[in-house]
Amino acid sequence: MNIEASVSKQKRGRRKRSRDHSQKPIRQPNYRQLKHPFPQQSVFSDDEIVNIHNTALRVLEELGVKVLLPEAREIFAKAGATVDEEDMVFIGRDIVEHALASAPKSIKLRAANPLHEQDYKLGSMIFMPGVGCPNANDAERGRRPGSLRDFEEAIKLCQTYDVMHTFGPLTEPQDIPINVRHYETMRVQLENGDKPMFVYARGRGQVEQAFEMVQVALNLSSDEFTNGSWLTTVINTNSPRMLDNPMAQGIIDFARAGQISIITPFCLAGAMAPITPAGALTLQHAEALMGITLAQLANKGAPVSYGGFSSNVHMKSGAPAFGTPDHLKMQLGGGQLAKLIGLPWRTASGSASNTADMQASLETVMGLWGGSLAHGTLLVHSAGWLEGGLTFGYEKFINDIESLQMFAELCEQPKASDEEIGFEALADVQPGGHFFATQHTMDRYSTAFYEPIVADLNNFGSWTEAGSKTSSQRATEVWKKNLAEFVQPTTGPDAVERLMPYIEKATAEGGASPLE
Amino acid sequence: MNIEASVSKQKRGRRKRSRDHSQKPIRQPNYRQLKHPFPQQSVFSDDEIVNIHNTALRVLEELGVKVLLPEAREIFAKAGATVDEEDMVFIGRDIVEHALASAPKSIKLRAANPLHEQDYKLGSMIFMPGVGCPNANDAERGRRPGSLRDFEEAIKLCQTYDVMHTFGPLTEPQDIPINVRHYETMRVQLENGDKPMFVYARGRGQVEQAFEMVQVALNLSSDEFTNGSWLTTVINTNSPRMLDNPMAQGIIDFARAGQISIITPFCLAGAMAPITPAGALTLQHAEALMGITLAQLANKGAPVSYGGFSSNVHMKSGAPAFGTPDHLKMQLGGGQLAKLIGLPWRTASGSASNTADMQASLETVMGLWGGSLAHGTLLVHSAGWLEGGLTFGYEKFINDIESLQMFAELCEQPKASDEEIGFEALADVQPGGHFFATQHTMDRYSTAFYEPIVADLNNFGSWTEAGSKTSSQRATEVWKKNLAEFVQPTTGPDAVERLMPYIEKATAEGGASPLE
Repeated sequence: MNIEASVSKQKRGRRKRSRDHSQKPIRQPNYRQLKHPFPQQSVFSDDEIVNIHNTALRVLEELGVKVLLPEAREIFAKAGATVDEEDMVFIGRDIVEHALASAPKSIKLRAANPLHEQDYKLGSMIFMPGVGCPNANDAERGRRPGSLRDFEEAIKLCQTYDVMHTFGPLTEPQDIPINVRHYETMRVQLENGDKPMFVYARGRGQVEQAFEMVQVALNLSSDEFTNGSWLTTVINTNSPRMLDNPMAQGIIDFARAGQISIITPFCLAGAMAPITPAGALTLQHAEALMGITLAQLANKGAPVSYGGFSSNVHMKSGAPAFGTPDHLKMQLGGGQLAKLIGLPWRTASGSASNTADMQASLETVMGLWGGSLAHGTLLVHSAGWLEGGLTFGYEKFINDIESLQMFAELCEQPKASDEEIGFEALADVQPGGHFFATQHTMDRYSTAFYEPIVADLNNFGSWTEAGSKTSSQRATEVWKKNLAEFVQPTTGPDAVERLMPYIEKATAEGGASPLE
Repeated sequence: MNIEASVSKQKRGRRKRSRDHSQKPIRQPNYRQLKHPFPQQSVFSDDEIVNIHNTALRVLEELGVKVLLPEAREIFAKAGATVDEEDMVFIGRDIVEHALASAPKSIKLRAANPLHEQDYKLGSMIFMPGVGCPNANDAERGRRPGSLRDFEEAIKLCQTYDVMHTFGPLTEPQDIPINVRHYETMRVQLENGDKPMFVYARGRGQVEQAFEMVQVALNLSSDEFTNGSWLTTVINTNSPRMLDNPMAQGIIDFARAGQISIITPFCLAGAMAPITPAGALTLQHAEALMGITLAQLANKGAPVSYGGFSSNVHMKSGAPAFGTPDHLKMQLGGGQLAKLIGLPWRTASGSASNTADMQASLETVMGLWGGSLAHGTLLVHSAGWLEGGLTFGYEKFINDIESLQMFAELCEQPKASDEEIGFEALADVQPGGHFFATQHTMDRYSTAFYEPIVADLNNFGSWTEAGSKTSSQRATEVWKKNLAEFVQPTTGPDAVERLMPYIEKATAEGGASPLE
């Protein structure tokens, strides 16, 4: 039953009657700006969430957080926090509440291409690829330490798919010295992409240069640069209850430049956090509130995001686990805490699997559903993340894009008007017949359904003849095709032309070393 | 960081102090009777759902359904439906509404082991394996026509996992002649399992013998047999608008014996059903209502289930697709229709993939989430279904069990009492420390988290040393171990002893041929 052939035949007949209708509509779904398709779901009662929030405030007030950076301690002290000689900072709840009141509820993520800009707020569903991976892996070249070439390829793959909403530090270009690495990661993003960008907070030197690079490359005035957030960074606390130097400085510098820092405690229940979802979330919440407070104290009203990446460890091996039931419960609880304080927030999917197999899909798709039902504003690691983040996998990336596109399709609700129901079509087709050639089908067939990028719907015989390839094996062909057919965004050449003199000069001056 | 070793060390120290606490608690999650973890979700407005319902009633009233079985046409005619000379039955909405009023809202699914009995009603979440597969496939023996051995192995695998709630016609034992096949499928279920059972509606002869076999094997009185439903069957209409002989007879016979028939139009949008979700659901609804009406006319108050298996075809190839966005929208719409008429209903997950890969997981897990958010009472094809049902895959079965168990874990909500939060544990652990050895962890570590059956959380090095096995490859070891260690249920030997004389006699008498 080849429907397309059958419909095409009808279509040809129809075309003879009316050439005006000969244009076949092309399916062009808009995956760019998405809202969560379902209402936010809960796992804790409202009282329990208030209990977690209040206990987190008590943690900040009574137990304190060790803040390594003197400048950050001074900012906290100036706001009335108590700082002791062991660098512990005890933050009163009034200071936190004041900060929460000034943190913006909606942040514009800016991009070289306005079509890719995002409203970073509760309700939005923004996908970021798998990031922070020291290694890269694909079926042709195997697993290897990440290189600049891998980073560039990964950026190109992210640019290829509209459902990949922001860039990120995909795989680490370990072949570039760390004092000049940020020049290359910024250049690659600007040359090959026009989506919201990312830079690591590796100290003031690198961060401020990244801010300058965006302004130079995109020819932005200072006002244009601070009108929304062009650069994103993720701030990981050192759970439990510690904030290190580059992270603290990053919060301060991003806040002062009006760029968004996403405060993300990585709380592994049973290891660096209490073993219960409620306990791990309490620690996550305390540390996130601390980071948000520092941002607001550094620059009142600065864009900053609540964040959480709480999951469990596998108790037999101590290995981090993702997409697990406890991970999902903590996603949902994290969403409730974000809703309580009224701020946009980041969650994550991802997988601990070592390869692009059923485990990898299950874990990532579970995290995707959990993250969306938790109304995470930003879903990090949503494509390509293997080995709990140690590797960016090309084949997994392509398969994950399929998951994300299918999920994105759920954002569009079907209709049930009389026309959509099609009683006449039902009347036209006799018992045991088929609907291939009804007008109702012909009017819609070319735009009706999601068209997969890697799923193979052929029967077993055809699939076997084509080499019995798994979706992971087929994905190799897809990413290779994507890279071979890559189209540079129109903003790329000018951006690089403006940027290169800056980079050459800064490189000649020795680059910028990271803060330890 | 081997947590178990670390905790064990602590544990040993503790044991010395108090031998009463030396018993390590074992994690024993109850996956047997489940409720959907999230509230039911919608894709259509209430008005749209009423529009679909009313249009479906109009289809039955104005367009009619072709009913091949004379006995069924007579039952409809006796109730006031119009029957024409082409076997078309036109059913007035009053007849349908009357039937809906008498259909039970809750049905007890009985089982040899009361622990596996289910309340078949809205809100319950009951998983049935992948069924109706002509072939079987595993990594050791390859793809082959289903045999009795395959059927028996599949039943044993279903019996092994509590999350597999009911049996079904997993893979077709094509090596057994069809006139005696039902003896073997019943025997295998009764010998190796103690869960709710299934028999195909292949005509009155086979169906009535199946009813007798259950009573004989489990030594049930006639009253005991009709007190709840011991046998389930799935009734597929021949969409569009046709009901064939064995299916019509099955509805009548199951209804009269007080056993449940699950009326399931298989409406592929764009092929045997209109191309729109609303149109396909209208056809599904009309046909399901027709079947429910026949069951109630045959025996008022008989157990019968609403059902739907509407998905889309891939328009380029005409192949059925599963787990797609349109499939999920039709699951959710189907759930709304079931809610409107107040009856329990069956939906399905499953995959069109030819092998146990990322596509297979994605499609099946999407259908699982869609089916649960649609509050499907019964989720058919939830484990092992490949190639759109042409093959029962052993490796996929094991991976799907992992998905189902992880999903089942979501049914248990976490708590956030002061004890669960563990402020004291947070206070005990210094900044940058860990929670491995806190009392809060020690009290919970052995029962805290889901323990995977096939997921591998080892790091890349250990995984590589162990042979770089995908979750599909690891699943081979799991099902082989399951079969090697299979424990026959205590009811098995007696059931078979009672059953064999019946089977021998019936076989000697030539079996029972299926109805064409």
